[in-house]
Amino acid sequence: MMDKADYILRAEYVVTMDGEAGEPVFRDGAVAVKDGTIAGVGPEADIEKRFGIGRAGQDRTGAGADWGDGRLKVILPGFVNTHTHAPMVFLRGLADDLPLKEWLEKHVWPMEDKWLGPEFINDATELACLEMLKAGVTTYNDMYFFEGDAAGAVARLGMRAVLGAGIVDFPTRVAKNTDEYFERAEEFIGRFLGEELITPSIAPHAPYTCGPEGQKRAALMAEKYDIPVHMHLSETKWEVGEIQRLYGKRPVDFLDGLGVLTSRVIAAHCVWLDDGEIEILAKRGVSVSHCAESNLKLASGFAPAAKMLRAGVKITLGTDGAASNNDLNILGEMGTASKLQKTVSGDPTAMDARSVVRMATRWGAEALGLGGRTGSISEGKSADLVMLDLDKPHLTPIYNIYSHLVHSARPSDVQHVMVAGRPVIKDGRLTNADEREILEKARMWGKRISQESVSKQVL
Amino acid sequence: MMDKADYILRAEYVVTMDGEAGEPVFRDGAVAVKDGTIAGVGPEADIEKRFGIGRAGQDRTGAGADWGDGRLKVILPGFVNTHTHAPMVFLRGLADDLPLKEWLEKHVWPMEDKWLGPEFINDATELACLEMLKAGVTTYNDMYFFEGDAAGAVARLGMRAVLGAGIVDFPTRVAKNTDEYFERAEEFIGRFLGEELITPSIAPHAPYTCGPEGQKRAALMAEKYDIPVHMHLSETKWEVGEIQRLYGKRPVDFLDGLGVLTSRVIAAHCVWLDDGEIEILAKRGVSVSHCAESNLKLASGFAPAAKMLRAGVKITLGTDGAASNNDLNILGEMGTASKLQKTVSGDPTAMDARSVVRMATRWGAEALGLGGRTGSISEGKSADLVMLDLDKPHLTPIYNIYSHLVHSARPSDVQHVMVAGRPVIKDGRLTNADEREILEKARMWGKRISQESVSKQVL
Repeated sequence: MMDKADYILRAEYVVTMDGEAGEPVFRDGAVAVKDGTIAGVGPEADIEKRFGIGRAGQDRTGAGADWGDGRLKVILPGFVNTHTHAPMVFLRGLADDLPLKEWLEKHVWPMEDKWLGPEFINDATELACLEMLKAGVTTYNDMYFFEGDAAGAVARLGMRAVLGAGIVDFPTRVAKNTDEYFERAEEFIGRFLGEELITPSIAPHAPYTCGPEGQKRAALMAEKYDIPVHMHLSETKWEVGEIQRLYGKRPVDFLDGLGVLTSRVIAAHCVWLDDGEIEILAKRGVSVSHCAESNLKLASGFAPAAKMLRAGVKITLGTDGAASNNDLNILGEMGTASKLQKTVSGDPTAMDARSVVRMATRWGAEALGLGGRTGSISEGKSADLVMLDLDKPHLTPIYNIYSHLVHSARPSDVQHVMVAGRPVIKDGRLTNADEREILEKARMWGKRISQESVSKQVL
Repeated sequence: MMDKADYILRAEYVVTMDGEAGEPVFRDGAVAVKDGTIAGVGPEADIEKRFGIGRAGQDRTGAGADWGDGRLKVILPGFVNTHTHAPMVFLRGLADDLPLKEWLEKHVWPMEDKWLGPEFINDATELACLEMLKAGVTTYNDMYFFEGDAAGAVARLGMRAVLGAGIVDFPTRVAKNTDEYFERAEEFIGRFLGEELITPSIAPHAPYTCGPEGQKRAALMAEKYDIPVHMHLSETKWEVGEIQRLYGKRPVDFLDGLGVLTSRVIAAHCVWLDDGEIEILAKRGVSVSHCAESNLKLASGFAPAAKMLRAGVKITLGTDGAASNNDLNILGEMGTASKLQKTVSGDPTAMDARSVVRMATRWGAEALGLGGRTGSISEGKSADLVMLDLDKPHLTPIYNIYSHLVHSARPSDVQHVMVAGRPVIKDGRLTNADEREILEKARMWGKRISQESVSKQVL
């Protein structure tokens, strides 16, 4: 008897990143999808035989219909952006070329103080998801305020996200004290646990903003609900000095002393680490979100990503917020991270293209505890797929598909994107909402913000 | 009496980069074009009054017609790519993640040995020009073989280029000895001197490949014909050691001792310089082509670009060849250079966005001796213009146009491009040749090259 599929997608290159199968790339390959799940992947002829679906009747749902001429150029797993603050798209380019302290105190914080609220979060998250989906990102890992309001926008646009309930030691609009932060967090986690597209996480902001009590309670809550822990770690040299001053230890040593470093933790940045700290991250199975462009733009430093990789740390890629990047483009991060680490490590063979594609897909998913569900084109995983065009001057000729993905491909090469088997981007356009409306709302917010902004721009 | 114009282009932002006028940005601005030259630029109302052209009858030539709804988003000067080897697009991604020596000796040189010739150069130059024009580059500075054959392709596509007659101390297909190199060079210069779009230059390859005699003769020839000198300089640490071994001096000191460093010189890379060398470059008026992405990818090192800038060196931007980048995208170089230099210099205010736009436009043109002709939107200069869309998620909202150009804009945001007042890209498509044909030829070359290549790719 034949296996069943709703539709089959065919492409010149099917880049699986399937770890258990040795990450095969199938030339003239195909992916069979059934109920939003990958039912099979392999050479086109094998898949057609197994599923009994030829060129005619290739699609029983319409989801895979009319994509190209029946044969796409490249199918690959959706990208995973493992560290961002999605709503900060509304601050994109608001105040560049400034020292971090001035940028935060005179621009970002006053703006957030004035405007943050459910409507801001909803509208900004829509814009961020639109931007990411168009660039082939199907899953992102967020940390900001009012994540419950973000969840609505994410679900409406059909994207996958891990949304972090933030914990800090000082009062904000979210909560007055530690107890209230954890009550809110637990409520948030209960609301979204078990959802298909939204995964709740707990987000103790950073060692310098969330001390021993918050860190320990966050770790316990993550264990209780089996969810990820999302934090900033050793982003700046200042932070290392501050933690040493407060606790007499470097940040990783401090957290390890609390017993909170586990394989649930995804730590963003990790720029300032000594060799002992790298060893601890590897031993505890902590994943790192390497945010190369943000680190460069804020002059934070060069993260030892290639060195961590050699030490066995799972490196993944994050854009950070658009205010410090200034976009949410994982393809761009792939190129920057690969090139930069060759010089940082002094080794042109470091951070090779295939490893970087792995970081942006399967490892990203695994770091978020979603390795069973997304991150590679593997039987049984969700059909979170990106379809890329190659018929462009900057992608011609082609010798190595991984090299093209890392160094030459751009968001504008993304043709179609599906999440859980449902098309979310088709021919470069959003399927689930009106792009013009999202942009119109964003422009309105931009006007409000620039009228209030302390920063008087030259223009 | 009214001033005369063939047509007027209107935009929300006209980014002039006009140095003498203080680089004004006109909101609701306009550019008047007459006989391929910029006849006026300023606020829309002023330009309409001065040229007596209202919305009706705005275009008497068709060149400016049907571009947007009569009002574009952004008009800016065409980008200048000050260092590339355009035909190396055919080697794009052929052999990444390798040490420089292995990459050159086992992959690049054998390929060039086998395939280089007029047809290769023509077809590859077409692809490179297509890629650059679509990304808003209107002028590029090239160094490769058989530049006479490149010139045909450049002119056919309507682009502006400075093409360098290469000089090295050893025999190649181009010439057997120094005398023959200079005869060939003089012949090439004579052929193209005074052309509208093509400017010949002399290109003593690098201090380690072109010794004292070649360097001195090149400087004399440049003076004789009033043309630029294009060279590689201090790209790798190895080069510094080699020049010290051969001549007992560091590369800049060595060249300065020969008396060949003048304001005609555009030196690519300049990664390994000491403070004294930076001072010499500033004093002699040498311009630098900063190739950030190539330097990173080949693990060459971090060029002290922000430091050179502070010392008064004219920094411009180059992509280098696509084999070491892997694209010809100046917008990408702008973002990389700005972000990277903030961390390299430890100063988040370094390489601010406006300075970087200047490097990619006016300074690039001035470095190539074309400052009177292109590089800014100034009355009397050629209408080399890029028109950019802003109606995109990754460009919304907008607070500062320079920040968007440097950190967020992508080649796919380029709508229209004109060179000398003639449209070369319209609605993202080449006007002067068939894109499909150019891509088809490139794919055929790719097949030939990969069959012969020593590199057996995984795929």
